[in-house]
Amino acid sequence: MANKEIPYKIYLEESEMPKAWYNLRADMINKPAPLLNAQTRKPMTAEDLAPVFCDELITQELDDTTPYFPIPEEILNFYKMYRPAPLVRAYCLEEKLQTPAKIYYKFEGNNTSGSHKLNSAIAQAYYAKKQGLTGVTTETGAGQWGTALSMACAYLGLDCKVYMVKVSYEQKPFRREVMRTYGASVTPSPSMDTEVGRKILAEHPGTTGSLGCAISEAVEMATKLPGYRYVLGSVLNQVMLHQTVIGLEAKAAMDKYGVKPDIIIGCAGGGSNLGGLIAPFMGEKIKGEADYRIIAVEPETCPSFTRGKYAYDYCDTGMVCPLAKMYTLGSGFIPAGTHAGGLRYHGMNPTLSQLYDDKLMEAVSVPQTEVFKAAEEFARVEGILPAPESSHAIKVAIDEALKCKETGEEKTILFGLTGTGYFDMYAYEKFHDGKMTDYIPTDEELQKGFSYLPKMD
Amino acid sequence: MANKEIPYKIYLEESEMPKAWYNLRADMINKPAPLLNAQTRKPMTAEDLAPVFCDELITQELDDTTPYFPIPEEILNFYKMYRPAPLVRAYCLEEKLQTPAKIYYKFEGNNTSGSHKLNSAIAQAYYAKKQGLTGVTTETGAGQWGTALSMACAYLGLDCKVYMVKVSYEQKPFRREVMRTYGASVTPSPSMDTEVGRKILAEHPGTTGSLGCAISEAVEMATKLPGYRYVLGSVLNQVMLHQTVIGLEAKAAMDKYGVKPDIIIGCAGGGSNLGGLIAPFMGEKIKGEADYRIIAVEPETCPSFTRGKYAYDYCDTGMVCPLAKMYTLGSGFIPAGTHAGGLRYHGMNPTLSQLYDDKLMEAVSVPQTEVFKAAEEFARVEGILPAPESSHAIKVAIDEALKCKETGEEKTILFGLTGTGYFDMYAYEKFHDGKMTDYIPTDEELQKGFSYLPKMD
Repeated sequence: MANKEIPYKIYLEESEMPKAWYNLRADMINKPAPLLNAQTRKPMTAEDLAPVFCDELITQELDDTTPYFPIPEEILNFYKMYRPAPLVRAYCLEEKLQTPAKIYYKFEGNNTSGSHKLNSAIAQAYYAKKQGLTGVTTETGAGQWGTALSMACAYLGLDCKVYMVKVSYEQKPFRREVMRTYGASVTPSPSMDTEVGRKILAEHPGTTGSLGCAISEAVEMATKLPGYRYVLGSVLNQVMLHQTVIGLEAKAAMDKYGVKPDIIIGCAGGGSNLGGLIAPFMGEKIKGEADYRIIAVEPETCPSFTRGKYAYDYCDTGMVCPLAKMYTLGSGFIPAGTHAGGLRYHGMNPTLSQLYDDKLMEAVSVPQTEVFKAAEEFARVEGILPAPESSHAIKVAIDEALKCKETGEEKTILFGLTGTGYFDMYAYEKFHDGKMTDYIPTDEELQKGFSYLPKMD
Repeated sequence: MANKEIPYKIYLEESEMPKAWYNLRADMINKPAPLLNAQTRKPMTAEDLAPVFCDELITQELDDTTPYFPIPEEILNFYKMYRPAPLVRAYCLEEKLQTPAKIYYKFEGNNTSGSHKLNSAIAQAYYAKKQGLTGVTTETGAGQWGTALSMACAYLGLDCKVYMVKVSYEQKPFRREVMRTYGASVTPSPSMDTEVGRKILAEHPGTTGSLGCAISEAVEMATKLPGYRYVLGSVLNQVMLHQTVIGLEAKAAMDKYGVKPDIIIGCAGGGSNLGGLIAPFMGEKIKGEADYRIIAVEPETCPSFTRGKYAYDYCDTGMVCPLAKMYTLGSGFIPAGTHAGGLRYHGMNPTLSQLYDDKLMEAVSVPQTEVFKAAEEFARVEGILPAPESSHAIKVAIDEALKCKETGEEKTILFGLTGTGYFDMYAYEKFHDGKMTDYIPTDEELQKGFSYLPKMD
């Protein structure tokens, strides 16, 4: 197809929105390793998972052969409140960088939760509602997932209990009020509400918390409260499945204008946005239909891919969840209290971990001061105030565009702009005041994290 | 044209975006009264205005005969970063209210400034840059205008000095950081920087400030600093002119689907968003081509239309600006410290004032607790967290939709959703905690405000 003149923002028509999520696992040659029961070390069954997760979501979690899952109409209608999300041609950034590269970003921040998280939140809340449940529990790091889930639950009339990583709870007081606006209850984690929270507080008094710890608390509450299940904002394959709406839309928009990316870049915390963005492109790559360079960007403080081990590990600090084979820093690893709360998770989605191990994608880690510098540069020319998490992708997209400037190559770069930074102004303030520092974990700290890995026979 | 199936969100193509702003005054039978020189009481000339305003903007301010001003290409390109803005069909709100009314809103919050203010900020910054100026000064109430102007100035490389109404400065600490991200300097007003600030602080120690006062300070600084001019976020006819892009897009989107609104609703502070939204509809109404019911919504605490006088008044508390004929509460009126900072201005745009006096539009005032109730109801079903200012329009749109429910009428309602409330969580918190109160100014307080009106011969 001819390369038509590209608008600043490509909006698909509602009729062009994806009607099904894409299950990349179905097309993978090496499938991701199954979840294991932490006691028996045998693959988790639907029955094992039923006390914790909604039934339909268990099906999605365990299925690695069905290529497409139709999106229920109720979810599609909810999607229409904020999707299709725009694919933006970053003309202003290109001009500022004076690069021959063509830069595109898929912007997922145009909704009140401020991020892509809503794509999976509405799906998970929908299946909980359909199952006749009373409510759901969850964790939140930066607060974006908690906000998204609160919105979805308010819409469907479900109760919502959120455990929020303490450092984010303190840095982002107004996040709590957004969730309250949507009727959710929010507790800083670790808390004294749960056994696991009390244990962690006893072992690490003064801890600023972690996603892994908040997950344990939310899971514990879900199993204790009748009519509740636990839902998770990232890491799991079901979440990546829902997030493929990002990549499917991005690809449809690019195809519509005859554009093919050379490089695809996403930030990686638990991996769901990255996995969702790259899924349809990776599918083509696996099948040999196209080639793409795919780059995961993680913070230096929490380098699961770049310095982690590919091993079975607990998904949570409290070790109440099943074991997942993933790139991990160990469930006991507590990353430094940096300002990208959404990327402070010790492990990585099992599907992405397998793809990385198969060398189908790359990973790079970056320091937060450079991330904020890129964020500010981007904001001033593109007009969007990016979240610190998303800005990891911006940083590497700018780096790649500047390489093109040196070589004169007209590469096409696509990156995921997962969300906005309206609730991150405390972090921006530290950056403006020159008070932000970088931190690289020592080898000793990493070894200590790995010591938490379960012994496998 | 047949009524096609209406999508949730109507996005125009870039090629369908308006290419010119619409100057409603050209079609008005009774023109708005001219600005007067405060000393001579004679109509302000371009020469009189030159020390304060940019030359091209003076032309736009004074011209009441040219129906269209072409939008310069540079501004159009900037618009493309965040426009066309969606016209949303509020299917979910209709369903929640169980109303036969068809509700649409034009959403202007999809940009980092969080509001429609960017439409005029880029225009004013562009003309300042074109004139070879170093920088601009301005006031900001809720912070949305200051943020918008900071973004526009960062984009064009202009210096930007913002005087922020003290109550907003204190309630919205993070707003300052957004402006800093865009390189602006922000001072709480009244300040000790200016003569007028020192005078107001001496007369009203402990005042929480007002837009009128911040305007005086910004104007004073603009005339004192070489290479600076003053720019204003509302009230002036030039600002309303730039904001007509809202109404022109809304009308084009509605026309595209063969939809005609029966009722058009907007919140009114200084009047620019309301004026911009209604302009093309009002033009048809004046020319007898169509009829629309048009409603301005203002806060009970600052009822310029509903309890003000139509008279010549100072635009600012310090009386350094020219006189404008408008609905006003008097430049010395300081409204209660409520949570819609953007609506705390004592006067109303002169064009809208004339239209209201000619009974071409209605006005209503509403208490803030009911506004927040409507805001929360809207957020839970439509997924957008609205700004308190914008929520005034939501409140009345819901009221009108509920009237349709009673009568069974299938009216089409269009309202302006001017922005998002991410920086208003302090206000939402008070509302959630049941600590928000309402306040109706007494007749005595209003009389005191009117005592500041200049004596006219």
